[in-house]
Amino acid sequence: MWTLGSTRSRGAAAAAAMAGGGLSWHRLPAGLRGYAQRLPALGEKQGPVLRSGAGRQPPGTGVMRSVRKIILNCKTELAALQKCEPRFHPGLAIVQITDDDMLEVKKMAEEVGLHVVHICLPEETATEEILDEIVKLNEDPKIQGLVLPRSLVMSDAAINTVIPEKDVDGITDVNLGRLVRGNFSACFMPPAASAVIELLEQADLCTIGRTVLIVGDGGAQEAALQKLLQMEGMVVVSCQWQNKNIMELLHKNDVIVVTSPAPEGLGEDWLNADTTIIAYNLPAVNSLSSKHQDFQQDEPRSSQDGIGLLKAAMQIKNTVESSTRWLKQQQHEKWNLRPLKLKPLSPVPSDIEISMAQTPKAIGVLAKEVGLRPSEMEAYGCNKAKVKLSPLDRLKEQPDGKYILVAGITPTPFGEGKSAVTIGLVQALSAHLGVNAFACVRQPSQGPTFGVKGGAAGGGYAQVIPMEEFNLHLTGDIHAITAANNLLAAAIDARILHEGSQSNQALYNRLVPTKNGKRNFSPIQLSRLTRLGIRKKDPSTLTPEEVLKFVRLDIDPSTITWQRVLDTNDRFLRKITIGQSGTEKKFVRETQFDIAVASEIMAILALTDSLADMKTRLGNIVVANDKRGEPVTAEDVGVTGALAVLMKDAIKPTLMQTLEGTPVFVHAGPFANIAHGSSSVLADKLALKLVGKNGFVVTEAGFGADIGMEKFFNIKCRTSGLQPNVVVLVATIRALKMHGGGPNVSAGKPLSKEYTEENLKLVADGCCNLQKQIEITHLFGIPVVVALNVFKTDTEAEIDLACQIAKQSGAYDAVPCNIWALGGSGSLQLAEAISQAADQKSNFRYLYDLKMPIVEKIRTIAQKVYGAEDIELSPHAQTKVDLYVNQGFGELPICMAKTHLSLSHQSERKGVPSGFTLPIRDVRASIGAGFIYPLVGTMSTMPGLPTRPCFYDIDLDSETERITGLF
Amino acid sequence: MWTLGSTRSRGAAAAAAMAGGGLSWHRLPAGLRGYAQRLPALGEKQGPVLRSGAGRQPPGTGVMRSVRKIILNCKTELAALQKCEPRFHPGLAIVQITDDDMLEVKKMAEEVGLHVVHICLPEETATEEILDEIVKLNEDPKIQGLVLPRSLVMSDAAINTVIPEKDVDGITDVNLGRLVRGNFSACFMPPAASAVIELLEQADLCTIGRTVLIVGDGGAQEAALQKLLQMEGMVVVSCQWQNKNIMELLHKNDVIVVTSPAPEGLGEDWLNADTTIIAYNLPAVNSLSSKHQDFQQDEPRSSQDGIGLLKAAMQIKNTVESSTRWLKQQQHEKWNLRPLKLKPLSPVPSDIEISMAQTPKAIGVLAKEVGLRPSEMEAYGCNKAKVKLSPLDRLKEQPDGKYILVAGITPTPFGEGKSAVTIGLVQALSAHLGVNAFACVRQPSQGPTFGVKGGAAGGGYAQVIPMEEFNLHLTGDIHAITAANNLLAAAIDARILHEGSQSNQALYNRLVPTKNGKRNFSPIQLSRLTRLGIRKKDPSTLTPEEVLKFVRLDIDPSTITWQRVLDTNDRFLRKITIGQSGTEKKFVRETQFDIAVASEIMAILALTDSLADMKTRLGNIVVANDKRGEPVTAEDVGVTGALAVLMKDAIKPTLMQTLEGTPVFVHAGPFANIAHGSSSVLADKLALKLVGKNGFVVTEAGFGADIGMEKFFNIKCRTSGLQPNVVVLVATIRALKMHGGGPNVSAGKPLSKEYTEENLKLVADGCCNLQKQIEITHLFGIPVVVALNVFKTDTEAEIDLACQIAKQSGAYDAVPCNIWALGGSGSLQLAEAISQAADQKSNFRYLYDLKMPIVEKIRTIAQKVYGAEDIELSPHAQTKVDLYVNQGFGELPICMAKTHLSLSHQSERKGVPSGFTLPIRDVRASIGAGFIYPLVGTMSTMPGLPTRPCFYDIDLDSETERITGLF
Repeated sequence: MWTLGSTRSRGAAAAAAMAGGGLSWHRLPAGLRGYAQRLPALGEKQGPVLRSGAGRQPPGTGVMRSVRKIILNCKTELAALQKCEPRFHPGLAIVQITDDDMLEVKKMAEEVGLHVVHICLPEETATEEILDEIVKLNEDPKIQGLVLPRSLVMSDAAINTVIPEKDVDGITDVNLGRLVRGNFSACFMPPAASAVIELLEQADLCTIGRTVLIVGDGGAQEAALQKLLQMEGMVVVSCQWQNKNIMELLHKNDVIVVTSPAPEGLGEDWLNADTTIIAYNLPAVNSLSSKHQDFQQDEPRSSQDGIGLLKAAMQIKNTVESSTRWLKQQQHEKWNLRPLKLKPLSPVPSDIEISMAQTPKAIGVLAKEVGLRPSEMEAYGCNKAKVKLSPLDRLKEQPDGKYILVAGITPTPFGEGKSAVTIGLVQALSAHLGVNAFACVRQPSQGPTFGVKGGAAGGGYAQVIPMEEFNLHLTGDIHAITAANNLLAAAIDARILHEGSQSNQALYNRLVPTKNGKRNFSPIQLSRLTRLGIRKKDPSTLTPEEVLKFVRLDIDPSTITWQRVLDTNDRFLRKITIGQSGTEKKFVRETQFDIAVASEIMAILALTDSLADMKTRLGNIVVANDKRGEPVTAEDVGVTGALAVLMKDAIKPTLMQTLEGTPVFVHAGPFANIAHGSSSVLADKLALKLVGKNGFVVTEAGFGADIGMEKFFNIKCRTSGLQPNVVVLVATIRALKMHGGGPNVSAGKPLSKEYTEENLKLVADGCCNLQKQIEITHLFGIPVVVALNVFKTDTEAEIDLACQIAKQSGAYDAVPCNIWALGGSGSLQLAEAISQAADQKSNFRYLYDLKMPIVEKIRTIAQKVYGAEDIELSPHAQTKVDLYVNQGFGELPICMAKTHLSLSHQSERKGVPSGFTLPIRDVRASIGAGFIYPLVGTMSTMPGLPTRPCFYDIDLDSETERITGLF
Repeated sequence: MWTLGSTRSRGAAAAAAMAGGGLSWHRLPAGLRGYAQRLPALGEKQGPVLRSGAGRQPPGTGVMRSVRKIILNCKTELAALQKCEPRFHPGLAIVQITDDDMLEVKKMAEEVGLHVVHICLPEETATEEILDEIVKLNEDPKIQGLVLPRSLVMSDAAINTVIPEKDVDGITDVNLGRLVRGNFSACFMPPAASAVIELLEQADLCTIGRTVLIVGDGGAQEAALQKLLQMEGMVVVSCQWQNKNIMELLHKNDVIVVTSPAPEGLGEDWLNADTTIIAYNLPAVNSLSSKHQDFQQDEPRSSQDGIGLLKAAMQIKNTVESSTRWLKQQQHEKWNLRPLKLKPLSPVPSDIEISMAQTPKAIGVLAKEVGLRPSEMEAYGCNKAKVKLSPLDRLKEQPDGKYILVAGITPTPFGEGKSAVTIGLVQALSAHLGVNAFACVRQPSQGPTFGVKGGAAGGGYAQVIPMEEFNLHLTGDIHAITAANNLLAAAIDARILHEGSQSNQALYNRLVPTKNGKRNFSPIQLSRLTRLGIRKKDPSTLTPEEVLKFVRLDIDPSTITWQRVLDTNDRFLRKITIGQSGTEKKFVRETQFDIAVASEIMAILALTDSLADMKTRLGNIVVANDKRGEPVTAEDVGVTGALAVLMKDAIKPTLMQTLEGTPVFVHAGPFANIAHGSSSVLADKLALKLVGKNGFVVTEAGFGADIGMEKFFNIKCRTSGLQPNVVVLVATIRALKMHGGGPNVSAGKPLSKEYTEENLKLVADGCCNLQKQIEITHLFGIPVVVALNVFKTDTEAEIDLACQIAKQSGAYDAVPCNIWALGGSGSLQLAEAISQAADQKSNFRYLYDLKMPIVEKIRTIAQKVYGAEDIELSPHAQTKVDLYVNQGFGELPICMAKTHLSLSHQSERKGVPSGFTLPIRDVRASIGAGFIYPLVGTMSTMPGLPTRPCFYDIDLDSETERITGLF
């Protein structure tokens, strides 16, 4: 077999050229010698091999100089990247299979400052395992480039598993396609091809019009080289060795690139004396290797090494280029978000018709648009995805966006459209004004969906879509809460039963059983022992007193505050008696089911900021007192880990989209009376990072500002540490008229004509409530923009009047918006107003200090926010306050459970009631969530089904799978 | 501007060549003329333009002949494809933007028999909308090729949106990459390049060694052409017009392909007389268009059209090629499935440790491997996916695979490993023997997971992974069942309350309210009217009697059989009193909660075969009797549609994988006593289609063969129409010894030494139970293979003895298997045995005819299957039988609720009890699911928590998110 570079086969002319060719470039500059150590010899390398023609400038020294220059440039570039993003440490992954030597690439990578992941696989590694490695590296955000071993370069599957973004070898189909198409900004130059160009430039052979002959098999790398040479303006002649005119072609051209081994039997005189030959990218298996020993005897290794280094330097160059692109992509200041077009119809169709008329973007597309990585999301079908918490860490240094809270004036029983404003506002910001904007909303309970009209986010042309998925199971968070809540409930009653029917020793034997001859405490039992002050680890060493302390929770059944829950409007479960089966040995007791969203676990989900924190809060849940009045926790019941396991997916916010294709997080939906009524801290935090510093996150507080907003600030913001920039206060002419003395407004009855005809006096009089709510906002030091949610019966004069009074009352701005009928385009003015308000300096402060006594905290809220004269605690409430203080829960914030239909505790008192004393009937505690909740009046925690529930209208078409009648 | 083909700019020599070139090929053969109509003129086309050199054979006629030949070949090929797959109608999508003319492609496509989707978009269509169209076409299984308009060919985004499989223009980056890499079996030849080759061949210019000069801009199409020419062995010279030696190159070469317009100012004599020029793929925008009018004056249009036709024909050829590939891929007889490697450890670690040590394949990868299309699945995170029912229709004509049922002998309380055998068997078949095999298993209840060890599928090295996801929320089906079940329960009690507290008229007014001034019945109310025999649609026309009939369901509370459910082991809910809150007006009653999987809705999910059928069954659920003894259904309560909406996703089976990466459907998990205990009909049907005719679907029947298998045949198979090919009967030495008279085996107590030491007598004696179960199987006419699930204490002699007796007792084969410790490799022998048994002729028959009286059906099962002397119905049971017969439910199959621990009703009687009379305590009915269930003894439908539930060991590491202690 004839091989290039072998003394035996080299023709006389070629030999002369070699000898006279001024091969001083064999000698490496001192600084580069290190790279050459332990490099394989000629033929085992893929890099191009240059033999300079006689009379040309010896390229060797130049090559070394180039390598040095490339490396130094890379180093400088990388340093610059890291300067602008100090947490960024780009990485190069080198996959090596036994015999490959990747040392030079590795050393160069380290020199320029790349983080190197060097993976050495044994030769027998199965292809699938190699593919798995590549897939992992593809997904690893710390890796910006992948260098594969030569043995893999043969396998299409392996090559094309590398994602194009990390293909610094430039060998994937996609990269080659981009290259030959000329899409250079998206592809990488194959390092070997770049090295050939560099060599030609060194030898001054890279001139327009010069002819280069490429002889070989026409492989992919050849196509790449052809492309690059053409770009240099050269004439490229390509042919195969089999060509009948091959000798003529070889003689006619003075620059020849050989891409496949020459056949045997080529004559002695196949080259001219002044021809330059480059052996290009010949893989070891069928190239020069068999004879290279001869060549080595009279040629220094370093001559090859220098060329190999050039290719390696090009790989490094590509990796730095890849890092630059990656960083640029990460710093997406502005999303490249494609809004969905909206063509609002008039009259406005039903919510579900509007939702179904729109085709949502695939959720993966939206996730990518807002800067999430594929590994950071888990799709749930096509329209929903859980988003992991890891971006919080990745974007730690990214400044937060602006944080907008949507609150409302005291509403009518119909609600005044806070959710619609929330959704409409992000549609305006993101789809119309091109500003990054995220909405964070609550997940509605499924119960009311089938009972009375439920809690869709928004309505009309401002909705979360697909609305039927939003309103049904979503991603199962509420089901997970139900499961966790009820496991704890079942565990409490079962424990009382087992304690009540067994001796201490029998209990102990069962609680700490012998398994495979050994007895051990489980970790949660050890932590209980620690709380009990028993520092023993061997179950056999406990004294009878210690056994008693350990096995008996001694729950006082009359103090159990933990209820079972269902996500169904089931009024017959409001008060029930359980344990009536004979198997429960007469341990009957009265209890109740609440709607699932009333579970304390829902409040915990809304307030937690990490898995570890959630687990702690779950363990802290106080479910009852023991007979000595000490709190019994979920941790005491032994169920913390199980609850965390049930909730591990629920902690990830769900990504959905608005009707205009902008992002929405749906996460948590705690009650707004017995809990704080806001969506999750985690969704807000993630969204604030994803929108970036010029973006907006819009979220909502339940009920009127007096309840929802007060709790948002004093409970949610205190927990999260976040501070809103602007409050949007939603008002309607209807609600203002009601506060101005209009007739009673109640669900199910037609509106009086005062509400459908112009009545400026009622509007003017009713603005007192708006004014009071603005004042409440100012207590917290945040600028407020009033959003007047316009109905078609509202007159221009009414709208103008309300806005004017709002501004006179201290609102930063007051604008009408037409969200229901128009979506984002109906709230452009609002979007502008909040953008300006967000630039105002705010002076955020909490209303009370946590160290104040519980009663003082309640009084502060009642007087400053509600306008009460004072508060009056029932004796029962006072006892409970004392109990919580004794139990060490005195420094928690307060979560008032009061009607939202009035500033006072009497829902019929509209406007701004005064002269009232707020009665505190009872005080309860959600210790896991972290608040004390005083009850002002009776709060229903289980809705019922009316005579004609919504389900009469709900249907599913079995052919089209379309839902009808849902809203 | 100089343009090729213009008379003004054409040099004298070229003109002479044109004139003398024998351009008879301008004339179209009559048959092709139609194609040429309305084609744009030269320069508006992308196809190659040939001008033959003087003295060569005129290629024109040849071109037309080629076109014809290609088209006829395509037609033949397509006909052949459709012959082997008559339902296959391959389609070509032609996207056209206003001015493009795609008529020729369309006509050819129609001629060869392709289904054409012609999409004409207005010029102003936004790029995003075009991309959306392309995405839709990508996903459309009826489309095998996409032809884009020229205006799009310029847009990288549009081009690369086309998936490579449908890129019949061969222009995506991936296709070009594949082409230049030489991966021809995966790419498409760009039609224009193929046309050039065809032209050269026509002109006899396509010879090895001949030189072709390509002059142009070096674009993607040029690279493709270069590649093709090189493959033909030609010498390719490429350069740009700017090259200083251009004139020399033009004169030197007699075949020139021009890929970009020549610059102005080229002299008159730029061509030799005998040069052949091909104007290749010049897009309209910057090509020959400006001057082509001149050319047209003396050249017939058809000269261009002929060449355009050649390119169009190549597009058709590619589409047929694409269809062939597509069909081949669809008919994947054998999956290209990558098994996950298993390295079993000894001793065998815990189930969760084994599960977590394995990295599952991405679920999308597995779905693709088993032949599912992306649009047929909905991922739920990375490890689970819901599979739509649409493949049932797509694969309608595909023959089913073999259907294997795993049943067991009468078990010990530990269970004898049916699930492990099910999973191990598919691991052996699919991962080791390379046979398509699907396991279909039940979803376990979450309740026992936290109580006593729950129902993981398999164990050891035969598991469904990730086992924690399998055992927890999965894809929410059980939660959906809980929601649907409890909505119906809440609706029943609320209805009783509302009927009990309102007059007929008040009820009617509320049930049929006035909305926007109109009163309408909802569809479900209309269907109730029809059932009542009231054929009226106007609410105002009902008589008072009709109103009464309509508004009063008159439910007799004492007959309510519909219970609430929870997926929690909550023993205190076994008997409860509800409605004790004042708001329920003393409508208290005693009721109970069952575990969620005991819900009739679970049984419905398992037995249904479509959305429409599920809806019907849901509506048919009988929840109680009215006071006249008539059944009251869910449809009467008005909740059918709502239930269907809640269950619409649950109906889709969940795809997961075994520890060895083979596919598993997890779907439905009804109780095996009060229901039939088998996974879903839909999962089995889907799996049977996906494995194809040589594949296997392995599923399981709950409990011993006497209960689980009997119900599987008489209930599930009767519903589905499917017939199993083989029954695998799982036995253990432990269970055999128990039946042979060994000491009592009970959970929580250590095994006696009889079970851990060799005892051949106990084994031999216990085989009576095995023999009886084999006989039971033979009642149904199916061959049975005994799988002896081996434990480490079993001796070889015991194993041999049991297998020998099994074979003597009529088993087709009996083999030991070591699944728990080895996974698939431990059950290779079983896999071989069932493969052989499946080739046996089976003679399947049901045990009883549905028309037999209920009592006779019960007696048949008791006598023939259980070996009872007779049955004895309690008076209450007899009353219920009479009631069901009166209500019209006499012809339903029977679902016996009997202990699984004995063939008799007395769990302590092992072996083959005889001489007993089976007592029937009660008879109940699941009318929606479609069976009558006699109760033999008391069945608990709500498990409890023991003193030390599993949850003590369950924990979640907040850092790694890993679960510990789950099994």
